Amino acid sequence: MQLEAVVRRLELEQLYTDYVHCLDMDQLERWPDFFTEDCFYRVTSAENFEAGMPLGLIHATSRNMLKDRVSALREANIYEPQRYRHLVSSIKIVGEHGDALDLVANFLVVRTMQEGDMTLFAAGRYLDQVSLTDDGWKFARKDVILDSRQIDTLLAIPL
Amino acid sequence: MQLEAVVRRLELEQLYTDYVHCLDMDQLERWPDFFTEDCFYRVTSAENFEAGMPLGLIHATSRNMLKDRVSALREANIYEPQRYRHLVSSIKIVGEHGDALDLVANFLVVRTMQEGDMTLFAAGRYLDQVSLTDDGWKFARKDVILDSRQIDTLLAIPL
Amino acid sequence: MQLEAVVRRLELEQLYTDYVHCLDMDQLERWPDFFTEDCFYRVTSAENFEAGMPLGLIHATSRNMLKDRVSALREANIYEPQRYRHLVSSIKIVGEHGDALDLVANFLVVRTMQEGDMTLFAAGRYLDQVSLTDDGWKFARKDVILDSRQIDTLLAIPL
Repeated sequence: MQLEAVVRRLELEQLYTDYVHCLDMDQLERWPDFFTEDCFYRVTSAENFEAGMPLGLIHATSRNMLKDRVSALREANIYEPQRYRHLVSSIKIVGEHGDALDLVANFLVVRTMQEGDMTLFAAGRYLDQVSLTDDGWKFARKDVILDSRQIDTLLAIPL
Repeated sequence: MQLEAVVRRLELEQLYTDYVHCLDMDQLERWPDFFTEDCFYRVTSAENFEAGMPLGLIHATSRNMLKDRVSALREANIYEPQRYRHLVSSIKIVGEHGDALDLVANFLVVRTMQEGDMTLFAAGRYLDQVSLTDDGWKFARKDVILDSRQIDTLLAIPL
Repeated sequence: MQLEAVVRRLELEQLYTDYVHCLDMDQLERWPDFFTEDCFYRVTSAENFEAGMPLGLIHATSRNMLKDRVSALREANIYEPQRYRHLVSSIKIVGEHGDALDLVANFLVVRTMQEGDMTLFAAGRYLDQVSLTDDGWKFARKDVILDSRQIDTLLAIPL
């Protein structure tokens, strides 16, 4: 492995780091910027993913759809006084084609309610494709594959 | 630290990454390949470990014993429709002797049942010795030291 | 990114790694050594942090105060037969001024009671300032910002 490969590895880890801090800080307006314009984003269960079911709990086929989703979340204005905390681990490059890379990573999201109750909110893996753009690495595709069949939330938040 | 040391660090992180994806994907048949032929593998509690108790919940002294364990698990065919998700953190080189390294790392395993219940399944640390073989880094020794006294499972799965 | 930047990144990750192993091994007497002599240390809730409340659940303005805290914890000798396990993720450099760096990182702490019960003990983020000293990187400032309002413990342990 040369320095170039090491640097790329750290840049990719940084992408996930920036991504989860954006979500955990509830800076959802910045969330679509982590994606390419014609991105694919989906939240689905491992069960449905393995069965080849195309749809998911959330499903978007462009960055604009992600922006719409954020607007909807903000307008709905459902007061869920809770905090989410992402732990990401075991990021791995599993494929490489041109400037695009396939990545997998494990995640765990812990939710803390205003009164202090903490729960395991979601666990699973990201199955992603990233592209190197003029503006750095972006997600061209992100499958959020939940270990559980569903998530307990009023509105489907970004994961 | 020179580039060589950086590359080695990333290779070791990669070893843990590959290891946990193998387990989380339930590709147990590949699991023994992460070990040397004359490996030592043990799952034990921190309490017993600190008391110097030699045995554990699981105990194997060769790669073949690990293969036997996988066969037993597959043949038992107990239908536990659950998924495991490993989070690994804080990998550290704590010793170095020739081509072998002593490592410690923290882990957390979350279990998701088919109906969606998520539980903290296991937490603790790996205390490992790895060797550089012709086929890359392998575990020559792995002590899985659980913070709890036992784990809640019908059959002792690899950790 | 040059090799120097890569090495620094790994050194900073190592700082967090050493820090959490120190805590998880209950080697609290070594804990103050991770800080500069005139350090600031605080454990607070995200709610209070965002409201600009200066105080916290724990509050110290020097390494000696941290040593006093450890002494108090040891002398109190409250027998809480439990183990803590830290998972740290998404370490990020968010600011740089001279030899000092601002860092943020996510953490999760799982507590295991003697009888085996495991609970989510704390989740949140570290907001830190580190300085490069003759003795390596040290925390000049550490804000432990909990997602919850409080932590369930008889005595406020280091986090």
